[in-house]
Amino acid sequence: MSNQQHERVIIIGGGAAGMSAAAKARRSNPNLELVAYERSGYVSYGACGLPYAIKGEIARIEDVVVRTPAQFAKQGITALVRHEVLALDTVAQTLEVRNLETGVTFTDHYDKLLIAAGGSPSRPPIPGANLPGVFALRNVEDALAIQAWIHQHRPSQGVIIGGGYIGLEMAEALAVHDIELTIVEQLPQLLPSLDAEMAAHVHAELERQGVAIQTGQGVSAINGDDRVREVIAGATSFPAEIVIMAVGVRPNVNLARQAGITIGPTGAIAVDDQQRTNLPNVWSAGDVTEAINLVTGKPTWVPLGTTANKQGKVAGENLAGGAARFGGIVGTSVVKIFETTAASTGLTEARAKAEGLAVKTASATANSRAHYMPGHADIHVRLVYEAGSGRMLGGQLVGHEGVSKRIDIIAAALHAGWSVEQLGELDLAYAPPFSPVWDPILVAANLAKK
Amino acid sequence: MSNQQHERVIIIGGGAAGMSAAAKARRSNPNLELVAYERSGYVSYGACGLPYAIKGEIARIEDVVVRTPAQFAKQGITALVRHEVLALDTVAQTLEVRNLETGVTFTDHYDKLLIAAGGSPSRPPIPGANLPGVFALRNVEDALAIQAWIHQHRPSQGVIIGGGYIGLEMAEALAVHDIELTIVEQLPQLLPSLDAEMAAHVHAELERQGVAIQTGQGVSAINGDDRVREVIAGATSFPAEIVIMAVGVRPNVNLARQAGITIGPTGAIAVDDQQRTNLPNVWSAGDVTEAINLVTGKPTWVPLGTTANKQGKVAGENLAGGAARFGGIVGTSVVKIFETTAASTGLTEARAKAEGLAVKTASATANSRAHYMPGHADIHVRLVYEAGSGRMLGGQLVGHEGVSKRIDIIAAALHAGWSVEQLGELDLAYAPPFSPVWDPILVAANLAKK
Repeated sequence: MSNQQHERVIIIGGGAAGMSAAAKARRSNPNLELVAYERSGYVSYGACGLPYAIKGEIARIEDVVVRTPAQFAKQGITALVRHEVLALDTVAQTLEVRNLETGVTFTDHYDKLLIAAGGSPSRPPIPGANLPGVFALRNVEDALAIQAWIHQHRPSQGVIIGGGYIGLEMAEALAVHDIELTIVEQLPQLLPSLDAEMAAHVHAELERQGVAIQTGQGVSAINGDDRVREVIAGATSFPAEIVIMAVGVRPNVNLARQAGITIGPTGAIAVDDQQRTNLPNVWSAGDVTEAINLVTGKPTWVPLGTTANKQGKVAGENLAGGAARFGGIVGTSVVKIFETTAASTGLTEARAKAEGLAVKTASATANSRAHYMPGHADIHVRLVYEAGSGRMLGGQLVGHEGVSKRIDIIAAALHAGWSVEQLGELDLAYAPPFSPVWDPILVAANLAKK
Repeated sequence: MSNQQHERVIIIGGGAAGMSAAAKARRSNPNLELVAYERSGYVSYGACGLPYAIKGEIARIEDVVVRTPAQFAKQGITALVRHEVLALDTVAQTLEVRNLETGVTFTDHYDKLLIAAGGSPSRPPIPGANLPGVFALRNVEDALAIQAWIHQHRPSQGVIIGGGYIGLEMAEALAVHDIELTIVEQLPQLLPSLDAEMAAHVHAELERQGVAIQTGQGVSAINGDDRVREVIAGATSFPAEIVIMAVGVRPNVNLARQAGITIGPTGAIAVDDQQRTNLPNVWSAGDVTEAINLVTGKPTWVPLGTTANKQGKVAGENLAGGAARFGGIVGTSVVKIFETTAASTGLTEARAKAEGLAVKTASATANSRAHYMPGHADIHVRLVYEAGSGRMLGGQLVGHEGVSKRIDIIAAALHAGWSVEQLGELDLAYAPPFSPVWDPILVAANLAKK
């Protein structure tokens, strides 16, 4: 390749997917021009760490940043923060970009484009949702704003709207600041990644920690004056001096849709297994993008950092001329809720039934360590498998210790396409401080045979 | 089946395999006569817990017992402790048994026999090995004797002969009692389940904890008078008021060999995948028995409680007329050494080379949690895979947290027959308190591709 005419790669979005792609493309081809435009003030940060920063467990919020634009510059990657891509012309292969600091708008050109625009918190049209003191959490600026609000107003009561991962992590984060909390969730239970009987253990932990739970009731209004004062759900008013809206995330697909890029059935950008969109020279990765669910074989949209990093790496290799493939996901996740850990992979029973599958389940409660070892605690296991074939469809774990990496054993079973019997045959590690001789997963799997 | 003529099942050995088999056989067929003969004074105990009992972490040594003879009796299982089987006639289907309490010898008859005679500590012919204060650790009585010796003699110096699992667990157990320890190991490193570079992390932990290590030097003599005083290794004398011999275990195959039962290439009893020996009506399970190593496809002998329980369950079902199968093992194990955990599965590089395989390895050191989370610690990962195919052959982990159940992910890869690339594609759980976004195993697997 001549030094005269280097390919210009533009990346929309400087989060995990975009910057993973940039780094990988740089390693694969030192001659590429690599430019990433990021709307917020930070690139390459671990958004999942933000609740822990608000909690105060991490010294400085900025510590969640993996690499700064200056560090990327040393690798020959131009990462421009506070730059918003306003429009995309996939025929001319140009973009219109605004520098949000100066307000100046300019046109850029790409030979290859990666859309890694991420997701944004859903903001349902609730009256009062824009009152001061009502926050969503997505980026470093959001976390700084929440932290500033806590320090300035010392709220004593708060409401978290939405009982998913971020809502529950924020409950732990805010409780540390002596804020009396209520979680308001429209659905009948928290954590839709768990079946109801498993979510019940999470409800119990939150109640033990003094967090009130109001399920089955949507928020109809948020009231206040110069700032938020209360949240109305059903007939009840919940006093609140801080409100976190954590009702989910939506993929930032507007730009792509307007440019004629195919949006898949999940509402995120459809890609092939090389992260290519339907248009030439346009790839997509991360929270704006679909992935194949290996359990159903269908596209799914699970916006998680793990998938964003993996898709970004594949896209980066391919932007540099490679032909890397991303196999897909099984939808593995874990969340810490005070002293409890809840983890899930694959399909819940409810989701599997919605997929039209004939479903059986096996549940067990077993020790995290040998029964005679001090410190052992219950681990609740729930396995979801297909009637007849016994094929594993998913699994859930809730407990106080030993949950997080145990879920990965079930995730591996889903990748392998094993039956629940095969899962029950695994030669797993055992020593009294770490497990009973029959690991809780094996206990559940062996019950499933019957 | 008539009540008049119930089949009589005899089990030689009341450990994990034997009593698992008895319990499973009872559940499968309520009409069987089930009798287990156990030489020691306890059945159905978790031998792996004994070091923790000696350490004092478990209140009473007897707490490691899962079920007592009285509890088995309620299930209609006769568990006779302090009974030694002296001879076996597989033509007449009879056994000669001695009641070790009364000295009375009697003959019993079986319709079906399970040999679950376990293993015994190797006792190499070192002069002085029978001195008072020199112990091996296999059963509850051994643990009680060690505990009594410590309380009576308050030893201030000790030597552990052998640097395998039991040796290292005993180092932690004795150090708590203010015993200054040296581990003497004939091989150049401790823990042969680890390659040398991984064992080095274990050496470092022991040295941090004040335990001296003497490798590459066998013990030539143990000296003393009315009790042990010193251990001689090479030209060095190690003063010792307590000595633990932990140089390995041998399968108790004498009875079986004399009875014409085939002993496999590993020195343990050869069985098919239904736990049947070469002789009709004779099964075998547990530490006296081989298992297929799923990585090599060959018989192996890895005396661990996990395998003993699984084989016992399969044998129990088949003693009751079933046709259950035991697929095999991959050789997964984990050991806690003070604040460090070391885990291994499959083949080490050394072992894989000895098997004649073309071997590559990939090593990485990564965080146990997100880099910005307090409490994160290094996890060292080493993956062993086949050159060319990339097929996973084994893996090792050493670290302070998050090691034990992470090894199971690699174990699952071995069961699945995955390549290291496939291992690197797994959708593993991520949340900042539990893992970096790229799990240490994925980091190592992705390095392996290059």
